[in-house]
Amino acid sequence: MTNPRDTLDAQDPTLLLSHAVAAARQGRAEGGIPIGAALVADGRVVATGYNKRVQMGSAIRHGETDALENAGRQPASVYARSTMVTTLSPCDMCTGAILLYKIPRVVIGENRTFLGGEDLLRSRGVEIIVLDDAECVAMMEEFIAAQPQLWNEDIGEPD
Amino acid sequence: MTNPRDTLDAQDPTLLLSHAVAAARQGRAEGGIPIGAALVADGRVVATGYNKRVQMGSAIRHGETDALENAGRQPASVYARSTMVTTLSPCDMCTGAILLYKIPRVVIGENRTFLGGEDLLRSRGVEIIVLDDAECVAMMEEFIAAQPQLWNEDIGEPD
Repeated sequence: MTNPRDTLDAQDPTLLLSHAVAAARQGRAEGGIPIGAALVADGRVVATGYNKRVQMGSAIRHGETDALENAGRQPASVYARSTMVTTLSPCDMCTGAILLYKIPRVVIGENRTFLGGEDLLRSRGVEIIVLDDAECVAMMEEFIAAQPQLWNEDIGEPD
Repeated sequence: MTNPRDTLDAQDPTLLLSHAVAAARQGRAEGGIPIGAALVADGRVVATGYNKRVQMGSAIRHGETDALENAGRQPASVYARSTMVTTLSPCDMCTGAILLYKIPRVVIGENRTFLGGEDLLRSRGVEIIVLDDAECVAMMEEFIAAQPQLWNEDIGEPD
């Protein structure tokens, strides 16, 4: 009998996104901002992360940066074969973190509710895959409607 | 009698840099990477920070991001009147963090040993002041010569 999991492509963007969505849901369940991410290399999840502004009072733990922090110190060779998966288009800080570590590929759940540094990433040779995922859009729309001030704080906008 | 401190301009770039240099020295004394920063608003130091790659096993605590984290959650109005002071030209991640929070002014100790995202910052309207400080250069030259692998790891370069 074939294990159904054997038929899954470990690099499939939709499968990869599911790890970031799970992280985002966890963050929301904790009362936080529902943005999650996963750093994936060689078909394995190195680390997941989610926005910790509320939970840790953090100004720098966005989904992507939290995933990088949770991955710990890694050699350049790991980042070089990694994909950063994120539920939302990466902000300027997370764009910069992706560039710093020369991560060559970014899978993005959606960029309807926020459009980050995708053009800068492309201009530096990063492959961008936007999935326009309905659940990612719904999570952000619900959150922004419920807590607009918190959302503005997270992206450095005035109330 | 005049207090000599009253004669200091709290916004003087050289005075501001001294806070970042002190943080960098602290980091080096702990066995870390000697890059420090300070977030200053209204002539007051909101927070200092320094690279914590070694001390915390951190991939995201650079000088500037550590200062932002230590400053805690701040409203956009505080960032809008802030200066980010750093001993070294900001890397892509720290450049992005400055852009995310719309910090309008960056004071840089030196950009001889590493040139970061200064052009991007300028293109987005950020004022850049480079002091070409001899002590900042000396700290980095000593560190890079002593621990080139650690330095490469910090900027996402292969060994």
